[in-house]
Amino acid sequence: MDQAEKRISEGSAYGRGPQHWDREITEVGPGTPCGEFMRRYWHPVAVSEIVVSRPQNVRILGEDLILFRDGKGRVGLLYPRCAHRGTTLYYGKVDEAGIRCCYHGWQFDVQGKCIDMPCEPDNGARVREKIRQPWYPVEELYGLVWAYMGPPEKKPVLPRWDVFENLGPNEKMVATGSSTGAGGDDTVEIVPCNWLQDWENIMDPFHIPILHTSFSGVQFVPEMGIMPDVTWDHTELGMRYIAHRKIEEGREMDRVTLALFPHVRIVPDVRLIEGTAQRIGWVVPVDDTHFRLFHAARVPLDWKGRVPTREKPWSEMSEQERQDKPGDWEAQVGQGPISFHSEEHLASSDKGVAMLRRLMKKQIQIVREGGDPMGVTFDPAKAVNKVEAGNFYRSDAVTA
Amino acid sequence: MDQAEKRISEGSAYGRGPQHWDREITEVGPGTPCGEFMRRYWHPVAVSEIVVSRPQNVRILGEDLILFRDGKGRVGLLYPRCAHRGTTLYYGKVDEAGIRCCYHGWQFDVQGKCIDMPCEPDNGARVREKIRQPWYPVEELYGLVWAYMGPPEKKPVLPRWDVFENLGPNEKMVATGSSTGAGGDDTVEIVPCNWLQDWENIMDPFHIPILHTSFSGVQFVPEMGIMPDVTWDHTELGMRYIAHRKIEEGREMDRVTLALFPHVRIVPDVRLIEGTAQRIGWVVPVDDTHFRLFHAARVPLDWKGRVPTREKPWSEMSEQERQDKPGDWEAQVGQGPISFHSEEHLASSDKGVAMLRRLMKKQIQIVREGGDPMGVTFDPAKAVNKVEAGNFYRSDAVTA
Amino acid sequence: MDQAEKRISEGSAYGRGPQHWDREITEVGPGTPCGEFMRRYWHPVAVSEIVVSRPQNVRILGEDLILFRDGKGRVGLLYPRCAHRGTTLYYGKVDEAGIRCCYHGWQFDVQGKCIDMPCEPDNGARVREKIRQPWYPVEELYGLVWAYMGPPEKKPVLPRWDVFENLGPNEKMVATGSSTGAGGDDTVEIVPCNWLQDWENIMDPFHIPILHTSFSGVQFVPEMGIMPDVTWDHTELGMRYIAHRKIEEGREMDRVTLALFPHVRIVPDVRLIEGTAQRIGWVVPVDDTHFRLFHAARVPLDWKGRVPTREKPWSEMSEQERQDKPGDWEAQVGQGPISFHSEEHLASSDKGVAMLRRLMKKQIQIVREGGDPMGVTFDPAKAVNKVEAGNFYRSDAVTA
Repeated sequence: MDQAEKRISEGSAYGRGPQHWDREITEVGPGTPCGEFMRRYWHPVAVSEIVVSRPQNVRILGEDLILFRDGKGRVGLLYPRCAHRGTTLYYGKVDEAGIRCCYHGWQFDVQGKCIDMPCEPDNGARVREKIRQPWYPVEELYGLVWAYMGPPEKKPVLPRWDVFENLGPNEKMVATGSSTGAGGDDTVEIVPCNWLQDWENIMDPFHIPILHTSFSGVQFVPEMGIMPDVTWDHTELGMRYIAHRKIEEGREMDRVTLALFPHVRIVPDVRLIEGTAQRIGWVVPVDDTHFRLFHAARVPLDWKGRVPTREKPWSEMSEQERQDKPGDWEAQVGQGPISFHSEEHLASSDKGVAMLRRLMKKQIQIVREGGDPMGVTFDPAKAVNKVEAGNFYRSDAVTA
Repeated sequence: MDQAEKRISEGSAYGRGPQHWDREITEVGPGTPCGEFMRRYWHPVAVSEIVVSRPQNVRILGEDLILFRDGKGRVGLLYPRCAHRGTTLYYGKVDEAGIRCCYHGWQFDVQGKCIDMPCEPDNGARVREKIRQPWYPVEELYGLVWAYMGPPEKKPVLPRWDVFENLGPNEKMVATGSSTGAGGDDTVEIVPCNWLQDWENIMDPFHIPILHTSFSGVQFVPEMGIMPDVTWDHTELGMRYIAHRKIEEGREMDRVTLALFPHVRIVPDVRLIEGTAQRIGWVVPVDDTHFRLFHAARVPLDWKGRVPTREKPWSEMSEQERQDKPGDWEAQVGQGPISFHSEEHLASSDKGVAMLRRLMKKQIQIVREGGDPMGVTFDPAKAVNKVEAGNFYRSDAVTA
Repeated sequence: MDQAEKRISEGSAYGRGPQHWDREITEVGPGTPCGEFMRRYWHPVAVSEIVVSRPQNVRILGEDLILFRDGKGRVGLLYPRCAHRGTTLYYGKVDEAGIRCCYHGWQFDVQGKCIDMPCEPDNGARVREKIRQPWYPVEELYGLVWAYMGPPEKKPVLPRWDVFENLGPNEKMVATGSSTGAGGDDTVEIVPCNWLQDWENIMDPFHIPILHTSFSGVQFVPEMGIMPDVTWDHTELGMRYIAHRKIEEGREMDRVTLALFPHVRIVPDVRLIEGTAQRIGWVVPVDDTHFRLFHAARVPLDWKGRVPTREKPWSEMSEQERQDKPGDWEAQVGQGPISFHSEEHLASSDKGVAMLRRLMKKQIQIVREGGDPMGVTFDPAKAVNKVEAGNFYRSDAVTA
């Protein structure tokens, strides 16, 4: 082989080492570093209005659970296999008092307390107290059901958000659990890749002019095709970027986007409509290789729903159409079930992604050492977070 | 966290240990404790009438096998991969003498003896004798094909049952392999959970008033909703329960049900029709996470089939209908592929289940130590077992 | 058990040891003995005419890759996950210069060189050179795209074949990637079993009179039912068999078939049309449990395609029809995902299979010791191989 050939053969795919992902920041099962970090926060697990008496299966942080609402309106989130003989409570029946297993009729309230054992003497009065169906505490807020799946003694206050408080008479909250914000559509809830691929994308303003504009045609607005000047910095609850664009003659816009722990995403209006973001998203891990999005938004009473960013709903696109006009789904699911971090080459435009990962590793370390990570508070007086994201013309822009 | 909160947080699903099943009494593959125990008995593997010359795949005790009937009416049960070059005998052709592999034409009789090698000199006359396709002995009885898959020197007598002997001129035997008795229907043969979940359910009379009556509506008869007084005891071949009910004014019924080793279930008529059980079932492990049922019954010549216990065949029910009216399928498959015994809480009404498991562990230990477990006999004079199960009014009831 | 019974019970399927395959000659992933041996040769990976600008996924030797043709007609075969952030290049767009990732627009040429980074300052001019998308060299020949996936410094000359050189004005080359030659049909490309099951079948002339004639009816020509006299011997590039048949009164035919390293199969016309083989096949491992066939053939300009060997296309046959008339697909896929060599009993008619395996083990050993296996040459002057396969009447037969 002469020198010219040698040069050509450089970079061969032959003989490469094993590929792997960074397990510390991706895997969320019980006992994993990231899983224990995640379990120090509240997670949305369902849109409130779909939680009814009929039990449903939910999977979250790698755990299968049963979700239902009892006859008094209380929501229960229980370990699925009945504490008696292990039949799933998915086939249970719910009444005022709680859920009853189909097999022998043991009944549990929303906190897992066993309140009936119809096949035992005196309905189990003497033994019931010793039985507890494993359960997690839940709350309802902003149209979503929230669960806390961590150590009981570390249960924080459920965060509130200033932009969702004090609704006026012509306003309402809407909550959704669709994959639209991840490039899917309203018919799809679960996205088949690791949650971090979606969340760190929030700190990546540079894919917008490419993926969403020049590559696939304008998915948002033409101005998003302008390559921004970007600064990233830490905030009290996580981090943000400020993307500065010269929009039109004499006008300059700062687009401020937030990624807050553990998986909050606050993305200002993608059509660049001016003002503070009125919509918050949460990237909830279903397990290591699936996630789902929940969103809550403050909207006018007569709001008609979001304007689609694609010509056709994702689930109706052919494989060829997805190749021609890929969106977030293709870019992020296209990174694989869990992206191989060993194969990456981060560049200057990936600064936000690198910062976010470092900051998350720091939080994970804090949890490991017994501390409380960013954004966790036990003081109800500090429950309301301030949302400083939005599209702002320079005159009123946030100072970087 | 104050004391009230502390109390509420008890029983959290957080931080639970690993879940597991009792492998000793559930797993049936070659060389496992339960598998070796199982291999000391005969197992039904097919209904006789469907065993024809066309080879079919069967899976039993975790082993894949080929089943066929040769031109002389003999049934063969062979290891599937041809002893020559490993092509499955599923593509073989059967004639008077045996089954011939499609690839190079080696032919084997029902005992695996190689009787032709058409590509070898003199049809392999000099080498054929050294070749044996691995095989299992089979017998036919009561309309079923039975196989013995254990050590050849330990092959017991194939059990017979007194209630199936000496049929009158207006009687016949019927045999089925449907999942109806496990809550399925005639279109489904394989149930996707561990065999023990079905078998131990036979020693659990208390699920009948709940699952089959109060929970899902009357699936059998209203009298089954009466909570019974139950005694459980050992028998020569396994164990039984006697469930005593005050059926109507002045009349009391004893319902006697048997679970005999290794997986025999003798369940009296579920409509409480009086008399000795005329029907026997076998809960045959397909592998660790699937089983199938075989049944044989003595019936009148003009018998029209069993009365369905559900309004709609199981395979035609929607998921929602199965949630509304679950049956044995939902309760037992709902325990998972193999029930997590580590998560169970057995109560007084589970005494039969606990006894059955202990008795099985004892049999497994006997086999491990070289002995013969309950119900195994090598004496043809002792082949006929007596069936003492049935629905009996107190005047003629079995004494507990 | 008396002596008669004891004899009958011999050969029981009970208590057999674990079954396994010979990993050394079957498994093809990176770093495996057979995989490293395979990686010293060129492999066809696609029919040239289907390689266009739209990227497609290909899987070969257990590696997933992206295949495309740039606007200048050059073919690229790249590691699928973008060197930047890991999104698959399947969603990339191809232009004159190369393929561009959908996510942030990094662009690579067919040799993996990074030629644009639109989100980096000055389009990444200062950092681009350090980035190389892992790639493999490809060439096009005989209507096929060939890839070399081995160590760059060991890249051999792409072999040519004398029968494909110097086409006349009324001749053309045709190339296909269908499974027809493995018993499938033109609608199926990937065969779900280990590649060796197909390749070693080439050195097995004895399955022809059975599988393809007496068992399933005449799939080729009736003369193929004549049991041949066979000799096997080594050649410069692998091995061959000569199958001698007395075809008709006074005429005798030698059928010479070649299996050349690493997976070349040269099978003369199966209708026994006289003459040198004008068609070559390659049994390309997709991974350990799948392979696909590529074929190139020299044909007359007005050639209409191959005559089917089955009455019905394979993909339209019912399971029952495949049982009634099995072909190569059933015989070889019927050996399992990877045939259990531990269960085989090779006989005198399997001499070719045994020789081929031994010869391959020798080549694998040579590669392990740093040498060059059979058929690998670095001298362009030795690129053209001579094809000495065909159906020859005795007067002009090859001397064994």
